[in-house]
Amino acid sequence: MTSQTIIGIMGPGHHVPEPEQQLAQALGKAIAQQGWVLLTGGRPVGIMAAASRGAASVEGTVLGILPDDQGSQVASGVTIPIVTGMGSARNVINVLSSHGIIACGLGLGTVSEIALALKAQKPLVIMPNNPLAQDFFESLAPGQFYMTDEINRCIQYLASALGQNV
Amino acid sequence: MTSQTIIGIMGPGHHVPEPEQQLAQALGKAIAQQGWVLLTGGRPVGIMAAASRGAASVEGTVLGILPDDQGSQVASGVTIPIVTGMGSARNVINVLSSHGIIACGLGLGTVSEIALALKAQKPLVIMPNNPLAQDFFESLAPGQFYMTDEINRCIQYLASALGQNV
Amino acid sequence: MTSQTIIGIMGPGHHVPEPEQQLAQALGKAIAQQGWVLLTGGRPVGIMAAASRGAASVEGTVLGILPDDQGSQVASGVTIPIVTGMGSARNVINVLSSHGIIACGLGLGTVSEIALALKAQKPLVIMPNNPLAQDFFESLAPGQFYMTDEINRCIQYLASALGQNV
Amino acid sequence: MTSQTIIGIMGPGHHVPEPEQQLAQALGKAIAQQGWVLLTGGRPVGIMAAASRGAASVEGTVLGILPDDQGSQVASGVTIPIVTGMGSARNVINVLSSHGIIACGLGLGTVSEIALALKAQKPLVIMPNNPLAQDFFESLAPGQFYMTDEINRCIQYLASALGQNV
Repeated sequence: MTSQTIIGIMGPGHHVPEPEQQLAQALGKAIAQQGWVLLTGGRPVGIMAAASRGAASVEGTVLGILPDDQGSQVASGVTIPIVTGMGSARNVINVLSSHGIIACGLGLGTVSEIALALKAQKPLVIMPNNPLAQDFFESLAPGQFYMTDEINRCIQYLASALGQNV
Repeated sequence: MTSQTIIGIMGPGHHVPEPEQQLAQALGKAIAQQGWVLLTGGRPVGIMAAASRGAASVEGTVLGILPDDQGSQVASGVTIPIVTGMGSARNVINVLSSHGIIACGLGLGTVSEIALALKAQKPLVIMPNNPLAQDFFESLAPGQFYMTDEINRCIQYLASALGQNV
Repeated sequence: MTSQTIIGIMGPGHHVPEPEQQLAQALGKAIAQQGWVLLTGGRPVGIMAAASRGAASVEGTVLGILPDDQGSQVASGVTIPIVTGMGSARNVINVLSSHGIIACGLGLGTVSEIALALKAQKPLVIMPNNPLAQDFFESLAPGQFYMTDEINRCIQYLASALGQNV
Repeated sequence: MTSQTIIGIMGPGHHVPEPEQQLAQALGKAIAQQGWVLLTGGRPVGIMAAASRGAASVEGTVLGILPDDQGSQVASGVTIPIVTGMGSARNVINVLSSHGIIACGLGLGTVSEIALALKAQKPLVIMPNNPLAQDFFESLAPGQFYMTDEINRCIQYLASALGQNV
């Protein structure tokens, strides 16, 4: 078995509108169907939970990078929990371990992960379209990320950035 | 000696315009004159170096939270280097250890620290005025930060938020 | 797919005698044959490399928890590299993420991991037999670990501690 | 003000015999009297609390490197709390940030710090005398640490290792 391609889905744990939950679930499924490993923040809430559920629906491998030190609060669908005990510092691991990153919805933790992803020059897709985020991050890292509402375009962008076929 | 008030100045290490260097230096000096401990990312470049220089000019105490594991690359003026060996994960320590935070200029690392500061609900001042940042962060954390070009107003805002007099 | 059982093999990267290399390789293979996920420190040296090689020989899943922030130095056989950028702080993740731990040979990093494993009350096997280590750790955590030269006994001890069959 | 010399006292938080509490308090005082900054794990228990108390009795500067993310549980006497939110991973910061290290009593966390200190080749004193620890660590890092019951000898050893006068 060769080294796997890992795609991270980052997004808020709370106050997530239903359409973004559905988007995250569909993204998780699409990532697993592509043969990629899904990485999330692992907690049983919000975007993390929805993405894990999507990947699990097609028997995908799901890494959950957990902030607490017990590993007891894990999203259903996570097959490999990584227990860090490092709180928000695990956001750095989320970013560095992902070959490509999708920000799905914007929480404050997600913004920290977008910034770190741009700093580490990782392929990055921000979903759904958000003009304020577009303008702000474009001013900091012009041309370094892709924004879309379409799952197909997201997967194609990441595959292309990683030199893979869809 | 009682526990000290720690104010963090966060800002980019590279591509810092001269006016922002001067602003950071003046802020570092003002923090030390207020009797506060200055905290920075500790590296000998950009905003970190300028702020440390300012505090050192009036014999201030300067904490430098270093990303590498050697502690050999330290800004002049740092009196207490903290060697983390944790790269960008030390940004979390910067934020959690500061009672109040000033973002001076915007790099990608700085944006990650602003987001973490808002998440941790720390008193936060963003300098200088930046309309894109204002609109973006206001959409995420309305009313939770202060933006100004004036050093006096920055210090007053932080003192007031911490229940202290200027 | 349900959540997997993760067994960590910890050991030195350098100055590893040939018999301990062979032991680590056989342990990695035995862990994979048991259906467990192998976790190591991920670097392409010493015990980490040997254990990964063993698991890879039977198509096992191998997590490599890497200390650097690039993920470019990885042991052959690692299927899922986790890039932490946190140096020795990743030893904590090694321990917290493993359901059971095998220390194979003793380096200074390994000793830190044994201590953390005992503190976290994880099932722990120390191999091969080492009277100094036996006496020292027995004085600190009596009855909390198992020491053996035999791979079969090691696997049986861990399976039993985890409530599984061999 | 120039960069300060930082000496870490590491030791268990719980089940600390009264003589070791007194030793830690006297060590904290001696470190402050030497003009050194004391570093501890910062929690209000055991060796950390006793050492902080000793340094505070002579107005010393005390860094407390805290494991939790709130900074609310701090030993009395700590003048500069560093809030990491990283649990046991903060042990790495304790070691890397100290120019010299004293292990006072042996807990499992302390053993992890001794191992990391030896790995980082920091000047290290283990107190009080402990034959099992002597034999075990001497087998791993011959000649790399000093063991004594005497505070004066401990301070002299560290000063000498750091090229300072007592």
